[in-house]
Parts: sequence; C-alpha cells; structure tokens
Amino acid sequence: MILNPIYIDNLIKQALLEDINYLDTTTDYLIPEQQKDTAVFMAKAEGIVCGVEVAMRVFELINTGEFEYKILKNDGDRVVFGDIIAEVSGSTRTLLKGERTALNLIQHMSGIATATAEAVKIVEGTRASIADTRKTLPGLRPLQKYAVTVGGGKNHRYNLSDAAMLKDNHIDAGGGIENAVKKLKSRLGHMVKVELEVRNLDELEQALKAGVDVIMLDNMDNETMKRAVEITNGAALLEASGGITSETLAEVARTGVDIISVGALTHSVKAFDISMKIKK
Amino acid sequence: MILNPIYIDNLIKQALLEDINYLDTTTDYLIPEQQKDTAVFMAKAEGIVCGVEVAMRVFELINTGEFEYKILKNDGDRVVFGDIIAEVSGSTRTLLKGERTALNLIQHMSGIATATAEAVKIVEGTRASIADTRKTLPGLRPLQKYAVTVGGGKNHRYNLSDAAMLKDNHIDAGGGIENAVKKLKSRLGHMVKVELEVRNLDELEQALKAGVDVIMLDNMDNETMKRAVEITNGAALLEASGGITSETLAEVARTGVDIISVGALTHSVKAFDISMKIKK
Amino acid sequence: MILNPIYIDNLIKQALLEDINYLDTTTDYLIPEQQKDTAVFMAKAEGIVCGVEVAMRVFELINTGEFEYKILKNDGDRVVFGDIIAEVSGSTRTLLKGERTALNLIQHMSGIATATAEAVKIVEGTRASIADTRKTLPGLRPLQKYAVTVGGGKNHRYNLSDAAMLKDNHIDAGGGIENAVKKLKSRLGHMVKVELEVRNLDELEQALKAGVDVIMLDNMDNETMKRAVEITNGAALLEASGGITSETLAEVARTGVDIISVGALTHSVKAFDISMKIKK
Amino acid sequence: MILNPIYIDNLIKQALLEDINYLDTTTDYLIPEQQKDTAVFMAKAEGIVCGVEVAMRVFELINTGEFEYKILKNDGDRVVFGDIIAEVSGSTRTLLKGERTALNLIQHMSGIATATAEAVKIVEGTRASIADTRKTLPGLRPLQKYAVTVGGGKNHRYNLSDAAMLKDNHIDAGGGIENAVKKLKSRLGHMVKVELEVRNLDELEQALKAGVDVIMLDNMDNETMKRAVEITNGAALLEASGGITSETLAEVARTGVDIISVGALTHSVKAFDISMKIKK
Amino acid sequence: MILNPIYIDNLIKQALLEDINYLDTTTDYLIPEQQKDTAVFMAKAEGIVCGVEVAMRVFELINTGEFEYKILKNDGDRVVFGDIIAEVSGSTRTLLKGERTALNLIQHMSGIATATAEAVKIVEGTRASIADTRKTLPGLRPLQKYAVTVGGGKNHRYNLSDAAMLKDNHIDAGGGIENAVKKLKSRLGHMVKVELEVRNLDELEQALKAGVDVIMLDNMDNETMKRAVEITNGAALLEASGGITSETLAEVARTGVDIISVGALTHSVKAFDISMKIKK
Amino acid sequence: MILNPIYIDNLIKQALLEDINYLDTTTDYLIPEQQKDTAVFMAKAEGIVCGVEVAMRVFELINTGEFEYKILKNDGDRVVFGDIIAEVSGSTRTLLKGERTALNLIQHMSGIATATAEAVKIVEGTRASIADTRKTLPGLRPLQKYAVTVGGGKNHRYNLSDAAMLKDNHIDAGGGIENAVKKLKSRLGHMVKVELEVRNLDELEQALKAGVDVIMLDNMDNETMKRAVEITNGAALLEASGGITSETLAEVARTGVDIISVGALTHSVKAFDISMKIKK
Repeated sequence: MILNPIYIDNLIKQALLEDINYLDTTTDYLIPEQQKDTAVFMAKAEGIVCGVEVAMRVFELINTGEFEYKILKNDGDRVVFGDIIAEVSGSTRTLLKGERTALNLIQHMSGIATATAEAVKIVEGTRASIADTRKTLPGLRPLQKYAVTVGGGKNHRYNLSDAAMLKDNHIDAGGGIENAVKKLKSRLGHMVKVELEVRNLDELEQALKAGVDVIMLDNMDNETMKRAVEITNGAALLEASGGITSETLAEVARTGVDIISVGALTHSVKAFDISMKIKK
Repeated sequence: MILNPIYIDNLIKQALLEDINYLDTTTDYLIPEQQKDTAVFMAKAEGIVCGVEVAMRVFELINTGEFEYKILKNDGDRVVFGDIIAEVSGSTRTLLKGERTALNLIQHMSGIATATAEAVKIVEGTRASIADTRKTLPGLRPLQKYAVTVGGGKNHRYNLSDAAMLKDNHIDAGGGIENAVKKLKSRLGHMVKVELEVRNLDELEQALKAGVDVIMLDNMDNETMKRAVEITNGAALLEASGGITSETLAEVARTGVDIISVGALTHSVKAFDISMKIKK
Repeated sequence: MILNPIYIDNLIKQALLEDINYLDTTTDYLIPEQQKDTAVFMAKAEGIVCGVEVAMRVFELINTGEFEYKILKNDGDRVVFGDIIAEVSGSTRTLLKGERTALNLIQHMSGIATATAEAVKIVEGTRASIADTRKTLPGLRPLQKYAVTVGGGKNHRYNLSDAAMLKDNHIDAGGGIENAVKKLKSRLGHMVKVELEVRNLDELEQALKAGVDVIMLDNMDNETMKRAVEITNGAALLEASGGITSETLAEVARTGVDIISVGALTHSVKAFDISMKIKK
Repeated sequence: MILNPIYIDNLIKQALLEDINYLDTTTDYLIPEQQKDTAVFMAKAEGIVCGVEVAMRVFELINTGEFEYKILKNDGDRVVFGDIIAEVSGSTRTLLKGERTALNLIQHMSGIATATAEAVKIVEGTRASIADTRKTLPGLRPLQKYAVTVGGGKNHRYNLSDAAMLKDNHIDAGGGIENAVKKLKSRLGHMVKVELEVRNLDELEQALKAGVDVIMLDNMDNETMKRAVEITNGAALLEASGGITSETLAEVARTGVDIISVGALTHSVKAFDISMKIKK
Repeated sequence: MILNPIYIDNLIKQALLEDINYLDTTTDYLIPEQQKDTAVFMAKAEGIVCGVEVAMRVFELINTGEFEYKILKNDGDRVVFGDIIAEVSGSTRTLLKGERTALNLIQHMSGIATATAEAVKIVEGTRASIADTRKTLPGLRPLQKYAVTVGGGKNHRYNLSDAAMLKDNHIDAGGGIENAVKKLKSRLGHMVKVELEVRNLDELEQALKAGVDVIMLDNMDNETMKRAVEITNGAALLEASGGITSETLAEVARTGVDIISVGALTHSVKAFDISMKIKK
Repeated sequence: MILNPIYIDNLIKQALLEDINYLDTTTDYLIPEQQKDTAVFMAKAEGIVCGVEVAMRVFELINTGEFEYKILKNDGDRVVFGDIIAEVSGSTRTLLKGERTALNLIQHMSGIATATAEAVKIVEGTRASIADTRKTLPGLRPLQKYAVTVGGGKNHRYNLSDAAMLKDNHIDAGGGIENAVKKLKSRLGHMVKVELEVRNLDELEQALKAGVDVIMLDNMDNETMKRAVEITNGAALLEASGGITSETLAEVARTGVDIISVGALTHSVKAFDISMKIKK
C-alpha cells in the first residue's frame, strides 16, 4: 500500500468507532467466539478495483483472533462481474463486524478509479490528461486523490499550501495579473508552481507575459480554448476546467489543452458494486 | 444546528488541516490582512439545501478576525438556480481559505437531501417511507444520516450497536430463524428492535412466527413482495432492500411495503451545485 | 473480546499516558531491562470477574519486549477469594508499569458485573430484568454497559441518538402525550423504540393510547406500580425507575414490572478487589 | 476553574460524543429551536459540592445559541438537600442535551469530595492527613485528584513519573533497601521525593537508615504502626496504607502516622445526588 | 496569523497538557482567583521577532477569565534588547500558567527567524536565496517553515507528497537519470516540480538533458559549483546543499547558485531570548 | 525503550503525517514495491547517541512489508565519526519514507545527550549536577527530558503539577516568603518538593527559615553564590540558574552549589550529525 498507513489506520479506526458504539449485538450474541469462516469479495460490475489493501486492513484492525487474507486483484486491475477480488479467513465475528466498513471503503475507492479510467479512455489519443481537484470529501482527500491515480488520472495540487493558484480576487488584490504574479513569485519557494485562472484571451496573453507555469481556462467554450492553445503555443500548460461532463469531455480534449480537471471524480462518486459473501 | 457540534467541529478541523498544511500561499502572500469582503452562496440548480450552518461554521473555525453571516435558506428549504443561500462577511483571507471546505460540505449534504427528496416524492401516496443504510462514507455517517432526514427520509439503524439485524449467517449460527431470534431477544435490551432478512416467503412465515419487529425482503421481485405484504398483514413492518433505483422505486412502493432502504442515498452522492462568489 | 478493540485501545492508551508522563523512574532506574517475571491476578473477594482481556491488553500496549498471558477465568465467571484469574509473563518493567492501569480497569469492570449479578439474583423468579442507564462516567460508557451485560443485566438505550424517551418537557413541547408521540413517530426511523415517562396512572392511560413501546413509571410507589401492571396488561413494557436500592429491589420486582433500571450500577461502582502479585 | 481547561474540554467532548451519535431524536424532533428555559441544579443530599464549573462548561460546549449560568455554590461548599447549586438559562435543546453529561460529572466529583470530607473529619485532631492513590478511573485522574483536594484531602504522587515509590520488587532488583535507595537517588532529579514500602519494623529501620522521605507502612496492624511512629520519631513521614475503611480510619489515625492513603476515594465512588429541573 | 489556526490550537493544547497534568500547585494554591496583573514580553537580544500571535493564543487557551493583549511588535519586526513586544493583562493565574509555554514558542520561532535573517543578509547582493529543508522537529514543521519565511527565507518542498526529489536510489531504480525523470514525469501531476540531486558535472549534464526544474548540487566545492552555473546557464535552477555554515555561506552564494538550503535553520535552532515580566 | 511507547508512537505518527500527505511521489512512482535494501545509520561526529530505538520505531510504523533492524550502539553510548549505530533492512520504500523522520528524531535526541554530557564533564569533580528545565519544545518534553538523562543530566520538575516552585509573584501573593511557604505546604501532597527562588542573601535566609527543600539562586554572581553555600551549609539544596553558558559553567560549579540548571540543553539544541546510507 503506497498510501500513508498512519492515515489509513486513523481513517479505518474512525469508521469502526462510528459503526460500533460498544459491541455488535447481533453478531456478538449469536455467533460463537470460536466460529471461523472464509469470505470472498466479488465484483458485481465492470471497472477498476481500488482499495483492496485498505479493505483488508479493516479486518486486521477489528480483529481479535487469527486472520488471513489473499489478494487476487490489485489496485488498478480491471475486473468484471463475478471476479473474486480477495478472500478473507478468520473469526466469523471479525468478518461480520468488518464487512460494511471494508465495503464502504473499497466501493468508494473503486468507484473513483473506475470513473477516472472512463474519463481517461475518452481523452485517449489527445494530449489531454485528466486531473482531479480539491473538491474532495472531508477526511477522504488522501484516499480519493490516490484512487484518481489508480484510475490513470493525475493529481492537481494537493492543497492550499503546496502550489499557487491565482483567481480574480488574488489578481485584483495584487494589482493586476503581471504585478500579482511578480509579487507572489518573490515570496514563493522554488519548488512551487504557479497557475492562473483566466476568463478570456486577453487575460491569457497577460498570463503568458507574466510567466506562469499553468493557465486555467475557466468555463471557456471550445472555440476559445482552441484559440488559447494556438496563442499559448507551448509556453505554458493549459488546463480546461468548469462543468465538463463525460458528454463534453471528448470535444474539450480535442481543443488541444493539456489538462482537463474534473471535480466530479471526487465530489460525485458512484460506488462501484462489490459484495462480500461468506462461503458455506 | 441539531447535529452534535462536537462532531461537526472535529470534522471541519480535519478538513481544514487537509486543505492547509501550514498556510495558503496564494492568499496569504497576495491578499492584505486588513482586506474585507462579502460573499454569497448561490444555488446553481434546483433542490433541497442542507448543511448551511455547517458551511458557516467552517469560516468561524478558520477565521482569525471579525466574521459575520446571514442565513437566507435553512436546511430543508427548496432552492432554485440563482437563490442566495447565505451571505458571509469578513476578512477576505478567511473567505478564500474557507471557501472550498465549506462548499465541499454543503454540496455533499445538499446532494443527499436533494436525492432523498426525489425518492420521497416518487413514493408519495404509498405507505412506503424512504430509509438510508449503513452504506456511508468513513467519518461522514452523522452528517449523511442527518442529510437524509432533511430530505424527508428516515434513518435506518445508526450502527451495529443500536438495533439488531439477523442475516443468514446469524440465523445459521443461532440454529434457525426461531431459535436465533429467541436467543437474541433473551440478551437484547428492551429498547432494541429486531429486524430479520428473508429471501423467500417460507422464511417470511418463520420470521413472523418468531415475532420480529421488522422483516427485510432481500432482493425480492415485486410480485413476491406483494404476497409478503398480504401474508404479513401488519404483523411486522416490511422493508424492501437491494438494488432499488429511482426507476424501480415507484413500483416497489406500490407493493405495499413499509420501508424502502436505498444505499445509494449515501454511498453514491451527486454533489448539489452551489457556488461562492465574492461581491465586487 | 467483544468490546470494540479500537475503543479499548484508545482508552488504555489514555490511561497509560495519564500514568506515565515520560518514564517510570522507580522501575526504569532499578529494574534491569532483561529481568523477566511472572505475575498472577488473584481475586480477593467473591463476585463476577469482568475485563480480563482488557487488563491483558494493557500489558501488550505498554510492553516493549516479549509478553505472554494465560487467562484462567473469563468475563462472567464467578470467582472466590484466592482464585487465580490470569497469569502474565514478560519483562518485569512491563509488569510493573502496567499493573496499576490493568487493575484499575479490571476492578472497575468486575465491580459493575458483580453488583449487577447481585441485583439480577434478587429479582430472580419475577418477570423483571435489571437494566442500566445513561448515568455512566465520561469516556467509560462502552466498558460500563458491557460490564452490566456480563453481570446478567440488560442495556437500556445506548445514547440520545438510538432510542426515544419522552419526559415532561418533551411532552409539553409536543402538545400533550398523544400529540407528542404522534409527532415524534412521524420522524423517527423504523428501528427506533419509543419510551415515555409517566408520573401517574392517568398519564399511563394516555401513554397506552398513544401506543408507545415502553412506559417508564417514574418514582411510583409499589401499589401504584401494581395497578399500572394490571392496567397495561402487556400492551407495553413497564420500566420502574428512580431511587431503587438493593433493599427495595425485591419488592419492586414483585409488582410485575418488566424492567427495573438502576443508575447506581454505573454511577456508584464499588471496585471489586483483585491483586496482582509477582511470583518469587 | 483551576483544573486544566484543555483537559476538561477534551473530557466533556468525549462524553458528549458518547451520548450523541449525531442528534438527540427526542429533543430535536419535539422541542422547537427557539424555545428557551431555565433550569436549576439542586442538591438531593448533604455533602460537599464539586465540579460546578465543569458542569456549566458542558452546556457551553453543546450549546449552539445563547446560554447563561449563575453559580450559587462553589466547589468546596457544603450543601444540604434542597440547596440550589446553579441556575442555567438558554435553549431548551441545550439544557436537555447537556443535562445527563453535566450531572454525571458533577455527581461523580461531588461524590469524591463528600467522601473525602467525611474521612478528613474522622481524623480531625490527629496529625494524619487523608491522601488519594493512583487507583483512579481511566481518563478521570485529573478530575478525581482535584475532587479529593476539594474535599480537604491531599494528593499522593500524580503518576509513575513524578515521585519514586519502591516496593519489594524494586528493592530486590536494587540489592536490598539501602543499595536500592542509593542507586535510585543517584539518578533521580532533585525535585523528586522517595517513598519506600515496608512490611515490618526491621524494614522500617533499614528505610530510615537509607534516608527516604516517606515510608509506607503496608497493611500493618495498629500496634505495629504505633511502634513505627516511635521508632521513626519524625525522621521520615509515615504513611498508613492498605484496606483502611471508614470504620478503621479513626483508630489508624490515632497511631500517629502522618498520612493515610485511601484508594476507595477514587476507585469506589458513590455519586452524590444532584438533580436538574427545568423551571415551569 | 496566517498559520493554520487549527494546527496552532492543537499544538498549544498539546504543550499545555504537557505542562499541567491537572493543576499548577504553586499558582493555584497561592495566587487568589481574583488577582489580575499585566505583564510584558521583552526582547533580551537583537533579532527578528516571530510567533507573537501564537504566544498570545496560549493565554487565550489556558485562560478562564477575562484576558486582553496588545501587540507592539509584529512577526518580522526587528527588535533590540529592551523592546517591548507585547503586553498581556488578565488573571494572574492565567499569566503564570501560560508564561512558559508562550515563551517556549515565541523564543523558538524568533530564533529561527533571526538565524534565517542573518543568512539572508550574508547572501545579499547575490542571486541566491536561502531555503529551509525537511530537517524539522516532529510536530513543528508548519511553525518552523513559517518562521523561515518571516526571517526572509524561502520554503523548500513541504513534504514528500508535494514535490519530487530524485536522489541516487531513485535514479538507480528508475534506470538512470533520463529514464527515471521520464518515468516519474509520466505519473506526476502538472503542479509538481521535479528536483534532482547530482554529485558531479557529468550528472549535471544528464539532468539538464532530462529536463528537470531544479538541480541540487550535493556537497560540491565552490569551483565545481561555478562551473555548474556556467554549464546550466539558466536552463534550470541550481540549489547548493550540504554542510553549508554561516562561515562558508557568502562564498557559496558568490558561485552564482539560485538557492542555498540550510538544514540548521530548523534542526539546530538557538532560542531567541525573550522574557515575560509582571509589572509591579 | 524506557520512554512511554504510547507517547513515542503518537509523536512518530504525527511526524509521518506531517511528512506524507498521502504518498511519497518520488519513491512510490520509481521504487518497485518488491525492492529491498539495507541501510546503515552512521555517526558523522563524536558524541553520545540517543533515540536509537525511537528511530527504529519510525520504520516499523511506516512499514507495510517485512522489516528488520540491528542496533549496534545503544542510547548513552559514545560514538565517533564513522561508527555504525544501527542497520535497517526491508522494503526500499520503507527505508526512504522513514529516513528523514528517523534522522530528525535521533539527531535531535543525540544532540541533547551530547550537549548534556559535555556540561556534565565540565562540572566533574564538583558537587554540582546538571539539570534541565521546563524550557522544552511543544510536544517534545518527554523525549527531551529523557535525552538529558541519557547524557548524564538530571531532570528538574516535569511540569507545573508535580513540584512547587515559588517565584516573586507567588511570594508576594502569599504574604512574604515564610507565609507563602507555610500556606503552600498546608495544601501540597506529601510527595511534592518545594523550591523557592531568591535574588539575594537576605531572601536566602528567609527561605532557610521557611524550610524549603531547594533554593534557586537567580542570576547571582559567583561570589554571592559561594556565600550562599556557606550560609546554607547543607540545610537545603542550592540550584544555580540563569544565563549559565559552557564558558561560565566550571566556575559556577566551583561555588559549591548542588544543581546547575541549563535551559539551553532543551531550548537551543544543536542536532548531532548522523547519516543514513543505503548499502549498494
């Protein structure tokens, strides 16, 4: 697992405390302590699986006896209906207590990876890559950004501290595009990239003059974006952003922009259907 | 706000720590400390707004100067494109640093409330109510379950500790439906309801004999559910569950079941579009 | 251990941080790192033991070398003076650093289980069961409620979120018993039971008419409670509550009520005496 | 409040999260948001009140509207049945949501202060003072030790880091009383006192020779303790410890020991009865 | 304060819990609750002050009564011996309990800002800027990196997630400089800069060919660095790193490198002397 | 490791969350999951090593595969340039992700131990011992105080709760030295030592009369301290404090004081140079 394990453990613990105030009455009162079982995680649809090790970790953290698992599909693997993703063996109580939390995590992460992969496929053959945004759910950003990469997408800046992005309010306060960029660069560290959001071609030209690394074309129509690509001519990366859906994605990609950022990848996730079944 | 404020503060703090490692370079280096502005939260679609006070709380927690807000639409209010939901005034730095986190929260909660309200509308006129499930996102259960109620839905059990739900593994371990229910009831507290999942009408009859409060009809076709309603005749509440979508919802509701639980309300949330704009 | 292990680990860590700011001067400066010993946990009175695995977990968490334990009495077992409950072997430093925290936990939990078992014994032969309340100590509710079940008691509602309990203020605000119950039920989920507190037989009749699951007879004398049992005639569960002591318990139980809730089980716990001795 | 407010806030938040998973269904669904009330905290017995500000803080932390309180009895004040301790005014929802947590805290703390005051009264006129121990409940040590001082007792060492206490295992590992004390003192800081537990008068003499600050007389009979007092003759403080109850306390105090430590003050607390009533 | 206030509050709370287990015996037992005083923070040396608001926040968090402060010197101001930095007024208990924690913070932060300003002064007139590193103290990175900027330095990458830095192990695993950079860039987001560490001019040429943003010259002598500057000729930023002290700094800067990173700014901080005195 | 492992784990987790928001892009994208390596920790200077087990623990906590280590130098051992302190073997990703955090910890702790050992050496042959202060860095007190003992120093009081220290404000509020000490002692527990800060010999005489355990000579010149030693004549311990540097230390020690406390040991730490190199 390349995700920071400290973060993952904290998140899973939070989820398990949400799901079990003190005990699982149904399971603890009916399933004998010694009973052991094996369960499988099975894909119920086609897509990219993500979060397999995270799901396994749930059982390790809730477990109080022996526990083993076998991973059959790794993060990033394409699965179809019926594929067995992993097999878990141990105390039946552990399996039943961890089931929901494990599924909630793997279904969410696989949902993101699958949707990202679909977007990536649509833009195949163009120069555009698909990127996420900061439109993530509270507490889930590390996991969501990771899932985007598993689906073949790229990560936009992680947060407000690690890359600069000037929007209209920053530009106004900084005294116009050129002044603002200059002022900002004088204080930024040398490892920080600067992106600037423009609303028209005039602002684009100013941005190019100011020398930023990336220019965000905010809610522009495709014709204007094509013009922007020509004008820019490789002097900066161009990012298309704003209300792009799977329907409009292909056409946007064909404008020649370098990056298309899609908030829905993380703010409107459709869970990928995976079930856990105990083998009889 | 009826949501536990301790939980909400913890969640917002977690989100703000995710979004700002140490400072917001763009904002802190360009916006003067003394600059003040007013911004509005505006609906960009039609739906039910939810999380307004939560969004306002984000600014209070990140704020280091004066800050004020006016709420124009309360949780549960229906809004249409262009409606102003709230107005926030204070340090421009505060507004810009809190914006994304506030929007991420209110858009997610409003998305849940809106989808729930749509489901509730579909079943109007039947005896069915719409309920959520434990298929929530890690760390977000309190907020998601609350948003379901704001949309007019009902909350299923909160977690594994507060209500009993027997599935096949519990029943097998407990020695069949009747024995398992009996054994379980002998240990449960008097404030705990018991639900049992059945896969066919034979199991339904056993469940009725065993005297449970609620019977979950797992992935049954509508005809069988109608039969289940007749057989049960009010002796227990009936819950339809499993793969119900907005397309099939109306028909399921017409079978006469009491509750229809919909995992997608919380596991596959579509963010409701709201923007924050600083007034010039 | 059926208690949520995430909770238990958090609680033990909190206790160990309270008990050791940085190191245990006496032990760390005098006991050689390599010294190993075996210690026994011994009952110093008669009662029901509870928290054995929790106590063992203390040593695992403070331990930095090898550590083993053998459990001889399980949660719920009756012990008499001199019974060995468990044996722990490992680094002497581990044994001495964990001793107090382990004892504080097992003595508190066993105290609750023992007192509960005594109450359960007193009402034996009646229809009454013994239940706990929300009168628990901050941070200890999961552990205290579990200990009540180990002593043979039942758990009342876990907290304010998982079951409804109408008291006079709720009833007044809701427009009287019938209106309040109706209004509340229209919003509650289908897995939530409703209890209502009544102060006299008139209110009891209204509660029955309103159709609640449980009726709490608040500080009623035994004669009135007997009348309440007759009037109710099984239409709802009856809970006696308020100032019931071990002296009055038997008589209350004989009134025919279904549940007797006893706050003292968790708010006034007498530690059960257990010692830890290192074997020479 | 002299207790560390960071600790108190953390503890109260933990308690409120235990008591409210997401909302208080009964209160939030029935009590109108705008309703305000005033409630009083009333003593239902005679004793020493403790934790008044802590209880008030509960309402501040759960509160989301206006809230005010008036304290009529301060920590350490003696109250009798019927005395009003404090009056709280604000949103009725706040009052009802905070009630149980506030009472659980103030009743526990007042219980400790009251029991301590009783013990202190018994030893009045002797040279003995009453001290607590490390036999506290997990997470509650700061609050319990404070309550002991409010009742007129003294605090024994706070934890394993701040004072040294040699028991038999330390002495054996250190090569006998004199060697162990010498070895330990060579490493301890100059602000750390050393106590040594002795089981007979021979060990007492060695302890005196070794030059420790305090000597604990472990489970000695009163005659032996009187002898110990004579032998020691002020060269060290003497602490009586082990199974001392309110019945035997007076006699132990008359042996002339300086300190009597009583574990029950914190490990077996009887809640002091206080009620909260909303004024009509 | 531009530092994330959630982080700052968490850090201060941690420090206050370290410094006060339950109460401040000396202060709480001797200073009357009602006593109020005013204290001043005074510089005892010449340098750049940093952390003034952080220090003030300590008193707000420990305070339980009224409290006010006046800031006379802001972060970044140069002070000389005797300058009053801030004045705090409130409960004497608050002043005494917060004093040490407030001083520990402001002295550490001012120490960093002062040392950074000294380094910045040394390189004045060259093209070199002074940057920090990831050699920070656990839990203090946000605060330390901020203090570096207050002293006029620049921040290197924040952590392992927000910028890429290839060292020999990465290069070896990636199949040489060119391959490794190519492979890495194919996966990195568009807002991430790439730095590569080289040990000689041959590696420098490869790095230039591979097209990285920044090249770190690892422990090179000044002559070689001058050559590196000529060869690079602006095609990438050059960072000098490794064992640079205040003695060697000026000469390194004169080689023409763009950035000089100095680990000692954060790993070997000399506290800047500030005292707090209560005015009589 | 004698340091509380709960504290150490919390601290390391905090550091790792600071250093890795979600993943280590350079390492996770370039180093194959299966690659394994061995690295050595090597001393780059002469001094006392401290924090070896803490550094090893970093790798255990970040690790997700197999991991082993061999410790060659223990806390307190003297090392010279080139000495191998420890060897770690495991996943290369683990080694690279943990490297910086492990070094940051061991270098800081070894820096403290080394500086302390130097101070201890200077006072060798006198009666003075070297003590630390409460001038520690937020969150690092346990680790810093431990490192002082490893260097041969002694720990002053741990915090405001465990020992009493009267300064001028306490004395004024308490009604002069004698009254204040008397009042304080009447409330302190029997395990708490009392220190009093004096500014001249007159106050010293009062302090002796008041009967305190330790007297701090605040910023006195050496002649006055010599007089203080004569006057005191063993009736209390004498602590020299205030602006003592390695230059003045020897002379201060020769005045005959018992303790010399040095804030710089923890507030101005110079990292001890240790490198981690992966073996080729």
